[in-house]
Amino acid sequence: MNYSFSNRIAALQPSIIREILKATSGQDVIPFSAGNPAPETFPIEAIRSFTRDILEQDPVTALQYGITEGYSPLRQALTYHLKSGFNTGKDSDSLFIVSGAQQGIELACKVFCNEGDTIICESPSFIGSLNSFRSSGARLVGIPMEPDGINLDRLEHALKTEPNVKLLYLIPSFQNPTGITTSLEKRKAIYTLAKKYGVVILEDNPYGELRFSGEDVPTIKSLDDEGLVIYVGSFSKILSAGLRVGFVLAPDEIIQKMVVAKQGEDVHTAMLPQILAYKFMKEYDYAGHVERIREVYLRKCTLMTDSMEQYTDGSMAFTRPDGGLFLWCELPASITMLDYCKMAAAKGVAVVPGTAFLVDPNEPCNAIRLNFSTPSDEQIVKGIQILGQI
Amino acid sequence: MNYSFSNRIAALQPSIIREILKATSGQDVIPFSAGNPAPETFPIEAIRSFTRDILEQDPVTALQYGITEGYSPLRQALTYHLKSGFNTGKDSDSLFIVSGAQQGIELACKVFCNEGDTIICESPSFIGSLNSFRSSGARLVGIPMEPDGINLDRLEHALKTEPNVKLLYLIPSFQNPTGITTSLEKRKAIYTLAKKYGVVILEDNPYGELRFSGEDVPTIKSLDDEGLVIYVGSFSKILSAGLRVGFVLAPDEIIQKMVVAKQGEDVHTAMLPQILAYKFMKEYDYAGHVERIREVYLRKCTLMTDSMEQYTDGSMAFTRPDGGLFLWCELPASITMLDYCKMAAAKGVAVVPGTAFLVDPNEPCNAIRLNFSTPSDEQIVKGIQILGQI
Repeated sequence: MNYSFSNRIAALQPSIIREILKATSGQDVIPFSAGNPAPETFPIEAIRSFTRDILEQDPVTALQYGITEGYSPLRQALTYHLKSGFNTGKDSDSLFIVSGAQQGIELACKVFCNEGDTIICESPSFIGSLNSFRSSGARLVGIPMEPDGINLDRLEHALKTEPNVKLLYLIPSFQNPTGITTSLEKRKAIYTLAKKYGVVILEDNPYGELRFSGEDVPTIKSLDDEGLVIYVGSFSKILSAGLRVGFVLAPDEIIQKMVVAKQGEDVHTAMLPQILAYKFMKEYDYAGHVERIREVYLRKCTLMTDSMEQYTDGSMAFTRPDGGLFLWCELPASITMLDYCKMAAAKGVAVVPGTAFLVDPNEPCNAIRLNFSTPSDEQIVKGIQILGQI
Repeated sequence: MNYSFSNRIAALQPSIIREILKATSGQDVIPFSAGNPAPETFPIEAIRSFTRDILEQDPVTALQYGITEGYSPLRQALTYHLKSGFNTGKDSDSLFIVSGAQQGIELACKVFCNEGDTIICESPSFIGSLNSFRSSGARLVGIPMEPDGINLDRLEHALKTEPNVKLLYLIPSFQNPTGITTSLEKRKAIYTLAKKYGVVILEDNPYGELRFSGEDVPTIKSLDDEGLVIYVGSFSKILSAGLRVGFVLAPDEIIQKMVVAKQGEDVHTAMLPQILAYKFMKEYDYAGHVERIREVYLRKCTLMTDSMEQYTDGSMAFTRPDGGLFLWCELPASITMLDYCKMAAAKGVAVVPGTAFLVDPNEPCNAIRLNFSTPSDEQIVKGIQILGQI
């Protein structure tokens, strides 16, 4: 049988990162290529005790079908958390639960984009989102990143000239893969441009609470007087990635459409993980836990940048993020990036070629992404030594 | 802001069932409208103890990111289970884990259908699937049901004349909503027609193991020598609906595309529920548990059909399913079905109007769907008494 796959799927390739992860999944490989939260940040004891409580006190709610919108107490706790902690969310907004932030991103695309419609995004950007947009049949237009966020002239040019622009996808804080945080001035300017051209902003903020240095920058959603912004968050880096719980805050009219689309995808997000996330918010020292995670990542990030200074010869430029999980390193022009990645893999260090994150993977790119949350401290030092030697 | 939603989403309505469920969600309502598994079928003690073991023995695997294909031991256990128990699955097939059968159905559509492509399905059929296809932009063509499955002449006519038919969607066993099981002869004839016209069959079998009378009928997938059939199954009615674990068995080439599409939807299915499902298969008396569920549903189904005979005047024709969760009742021609549903709701009995399950909701339909798994035994008797009075 010759299968006739849909156009949007036929052209799609598996994520390069996942292929590299498979190729370098041996125990001895130093995993600078991953994006996993550090396992020592999982509050395992609390999860054990909360799970026990849930299955003792109300097992049927945890095991029966739930409503598509999600577990109401969790929705209320998150709405309050975003409003009180980050001035994010208005009365005209609603919040619902998704199966990880990835689903929120995919649903936003499904709700707004016909096949062939345009999504403007940062370039480089998170490969998972780019591939999700591609598999929905959307057309991507990338705007180059600068140290304080995307280039505004290029953004306005794209908003003005590209056909059927439906979404502007941004990771404003500790961006994946660059680690860049968009400045408040640029956030305001981006919001004004989106308003001017009537385009909805999709703000992806999985690392927002993982700031380990510098001052908090307000979310774009906190500037949203016009109902322009869909805000997507996640428990993956705070509680557990494997539980697959995220959330979307957006104008109620948009949320209603996303809920209908989610019904057709997975009916609802698994209940036990949702109730666990709720208990984690209400019955645990959430603030103290986030503070401990920040300390872990500050230590690991500093160890990686210190090692870079010590073991590389200064010809590799790298970002110094104030949060998140990643460094972005520009190799010297004399080095061919893909060869470098292959040599690193051969010496037991897995890194991701920067091209993986580009909207157009054929654009020139001599950068690699390094993750500091997954490897152990020893692996960080040893891995950077090896990268320096290469 | 005026939002410009995608064509496929703009026209979509929330599921009528979910609206009725919301309208009749009070504690006193008798829930013949739901499709929830009976809570007494959840193996709660086992889930408590397996969860404790998982979080003691290997918490990081349960809480960290996993691969999109799913938890390997679960995939292997399911592959063996389907092959050894149901002769279902060939060496050229692969199996992967999805977040409930609904996701498997949605992914099949995404992988095969461009916007406007045709899916042929039974009419009536499961509203969740129909709405999922609609929200992917597919065009639906319904084939009328007969007591032994869809009308073959109408099926062949549709295969021959409809443009761009990409999938044939079937629930061959204890169909939702009719309770009808497609005969082996028809399964063979349907398979032959699909082969003749080069159309992939999407076999949805959430209730397959819930036969409480009669003889097992082989799955269509077990007839699949040509790699034509995508088989979707679920733990929702066997272990727990709220855990959202399902699976897809199909030719490896199709599975690879579905895995890429799933990456963009939710990265992977939550790990703790997957490991729980694995332990349930390997460390529990799975066969004995399924046997106990069958006994529960046989009792409830018999109670409902006995009550129908006792409390209705014989003018209501209803199916007598050999498994699954539903009865399909044809009202007398003198009764207007939607008025009847509203009167039932006013008297505290929630039923689903049959039109909700039609491909074309404007077709004439004087039937209602009754669920016997969710209500208690007392509710079944009392609810049918009320329906009879009306």
